[in-house]
Amino acid sequence: MISERTKKALAGSSAIRAMFVEGREMAEKFGAENVYDFSLGNPATPAPAALGEAIRSLVDESAAAEGGSLELHGYMENAGYRTVRAAVAENLNRRFDTAFGFENIIMTVGAAGGLNAIFQTILDPGDEVAVFVPFFGEYREYAANFGAEIVTVRPDFETFEPDLTDFELKISGKTKAVIVNTPNNPTGVIYKPATMKKIAGILEEKQRAFSHDIYLISDEPYRELVYDGNKEDFLTKYYDNTIVGYSFSKSLSMPGERIGYVVVPDEASDAQELIQGIGIANRTLGFVNAPSLIQKAAARCLEEKTDVAFYDENRRVLYERLTKLGFTCIRPEGAFYLWLKTPVQDEEDFVSEGKKRHILMVKGSAFGCPGFVRIAYCVSHETVRNSLSAFAELANHYGLCHT
Amino acid sequence: MISERTKKALAGSSAIRAMFVEGREMAEKFGAENVYDFSLGNPATPAPAALGEAIRSLVDESAAAEGGSLELHGYMENAGYRTVRAAVAENLNRRFDTAFGFENIIMTVGAAGGLNAIFQTILDPGDEVAVFVPFFGEYREYAANFGAEIVTVRPDFETFEPDLTDFELKISGKTKAVIVNTPNNPTGVIYKPATMKKIAGILEEKQRAFSHDIYLISDEPYRELVYDGNKEDFLTKYYDNTIVGYSFSKSLSMPGERIGYVVVPDEASDAQELIQGIGIANRTLGFVNAPSLIQKAAARCLEEKTDVAFYDENRRVLYERLTKLGFTCIRPEGAFYLWLKTPVQDEEDFVSEGKKRHILMVKGSAFGCPGFVRIAYCVSHETVRNSLSAFAELANHYGLCHT
Repeated sequence: MISERTKKALAGSSAIRAMFVEGREMAEKFGAENVYDFSLGNPATPAPAALGEAIRSLVDESAAAEGGSLELHGYMENAGYRTVRAAVAENLNRRFDTAFGFENIIMTVGAAGGLNAIFQTILDPGDEVAVFVPFFGEYREYAANFGAEIVTVRPDFETFEPDLTDFELKISGKTKAVIVNTPNNPTGVIYKPATMKKIAGILEEKQRAFSHDIYLISDEPYRELVYDGNKEDFLTKYYDNTIVGYSFSKSLSMPGERIGYVVVPDEASDAQELIQGIGIANRTLGFVNAPSLIQKAAARCLEEKTDVAFYDENRRVLYERLTKLGFTCIRPEGAFYLWLKTPVQDEEDFVSEGKKRHILMVKGSAFGCPGFVRIAYCVSHETVRNSLSAFAELANHYGLCHT
Repeated sequence: MISERTKKALAGSSAIRAMFVEGREMAEKFGAENVYDFSLGNPATPAPAALGEAIRSLVDESAAAEGGSLELHGYMENAGYRTVRAAVAENLNRRFDTAFGFENIIMTVGAAGGLNAIFQTILDPGDEVAVFVPFFGEYREYAANFGAEIVTVRPDFETFEPDLTDFELKISGKTKAVIVNTPNNPTGVIYKPATMKKIAGILEEKQRAFSHDIYLISDEPYRELVYDGNKEDFLTKYYDNTIVGYSFSKSLSMPGERIGYVVVPDEASDAQELIQGIGIANRTLGFVNAPSLIQKAAARCLEEKTDVAFYDENRRVLYERLTKLGFTCIRPEGAFYLWLKTPVQDEEDFVSEGKKRHILMVKGSAFGCPGFVRIAYCVSHETVRNSLSAFAELANHYGLCHT
């Protein structure tokens, strides 16, 4: 006797995660080297060596410390170790010219845990959260956890930046928050500073018009994954009511460890209540706190970088080859996703034809945007290379001009 | 502009966790050795050395493995690594004569994460969850996350086992689940097998009467913490519709790491849907999966035991001394809590008088049971010894006969 919500969830389980299991099964059947699994945003470059060293040192130090491992593996405040929060604040301040103290940082169980904690803190049933299409489908679930609803904003289908005219129309008296995700999953687009300024301007005007706060939630797990000389950006400078959700999943290649943080700037309305509320939400939602050892390990790796050049090579090879094959793609500027327009209206058909050629891609409707697929190129160079002839076959199947 | 729920939460923030911060502040002011902080269930014995060794080995092995740390810190199925789940199943099977496969085990972000995932899977808004007073106050929050309500069942105030007559009255057509927590937080009582059989009998009768399933959720973080020759018990044998939520927080002294698991036996109604639903709930609630490295480390430490003798000494010293001082206490049989009847009706007064003497205790009303306090004796032997004269002063203050 399961809940109504679970019944629905079982019927429409995540396309992405279902494909994860399918990909593993295909790899077992055909050999991993013969399956081109572009379905999941699982980093392809190992964590920096410093992460393993940090973990080892922490374990060694705690074995030698008075009280042994009690502090390393023990409870702390729901918001995380103050030393870790201070280290994160200092790192951000140095990089982005901000002025955060430890109080502005709340450690969370990944960005997913952070978004849920933010949502519990600000959302009442019936509230609306605006998202820009295409968007990470689970935003819908996270809002539903608190009885709130997602309202979708149309993209400019050329640039895949938001259609700001539509944005203005979609902000209502019920809008409590707007999620922005740049560099973007699934398009790889980075919103231009001018776009961010316009979004901020619209939000300020709407706040005045509706006489209530609208928080901009910046979901930025791909902050450091930028190409072509694009600079890492930090969005609190555009709009006072910005709350940041970050994850170390991609930047330190540890998505399984569930570690991230939320930033609430002092400039945000009710900043103190937000900070306390998010800490309480950590507890009442069952996270309690971000995993302790990994909190401390991440704090020692804040200067580490993932191997951006590795992803960049995949990006170049795939983008160049696929466009040459006649596919229409958005040129990725960040993250590790390629957004491809399906040559037929029926994206299911395209995904299915891809699968026949051992190419696994996620259909755009999983991101609220049918007619496209997401190709997650966080895979080995070999997988990319080996996939090219399969993509050529796919182009051929759809009668594209390939060279 | 925070949510209504957060406003309420800020007003009535967890007494236990607030005291955690207060305890730290008092320790800084008066010196840790002069503060007798019995407020938090934070293990006092370090994690077994095997845990640190397991972590180190996993990091070393992953550094040497093909793909480096990708598997160790990467995504896996939402339910956890199959190897870890299989190891947990085998360990349970050997100890409790069960027959679980890996499919029956779902790794979770602690027991708190597990309970929330179970609740999402079975609870619809308006459902009721029966709990036995006194109970861990956050059950109420977890139920509220899904629009469900806690219904409280009175204890027998002599034994602090449930009053089964009241239990029968409190099960209604809306009851979807009953939580049992034995060894119990906050009383330290272990429910007798005869009690468990009666609870099971009542639930079976009520299932028939209301023609729907009622799940018994066994929240058992203290499973291994039993004294006086009591045997570790595993509750699935009493009642088919039992779901177990476990945490390694106490058994391996790592509450900060947020690692536990849920067991769904094949005998439970809709077992397959429950298993899938709990995996999906891991994702949609923002947990995604239990932390990866610690999953694997815990799987290597399943044969490890916490230092029960350490807690047992604290238990004996405190129980004997406090009863001699004239306090009325429930003799703890498990967990690491002493449940003490306040000598005055006004428990706030008692807690406050304790605090004046640097004794930190949690008021019973935090567990739905005013007129009592919880003394968490998961502290050093020294803290226990040093606290005794302060307890004597407290007894004196209330005019108890002390010897």
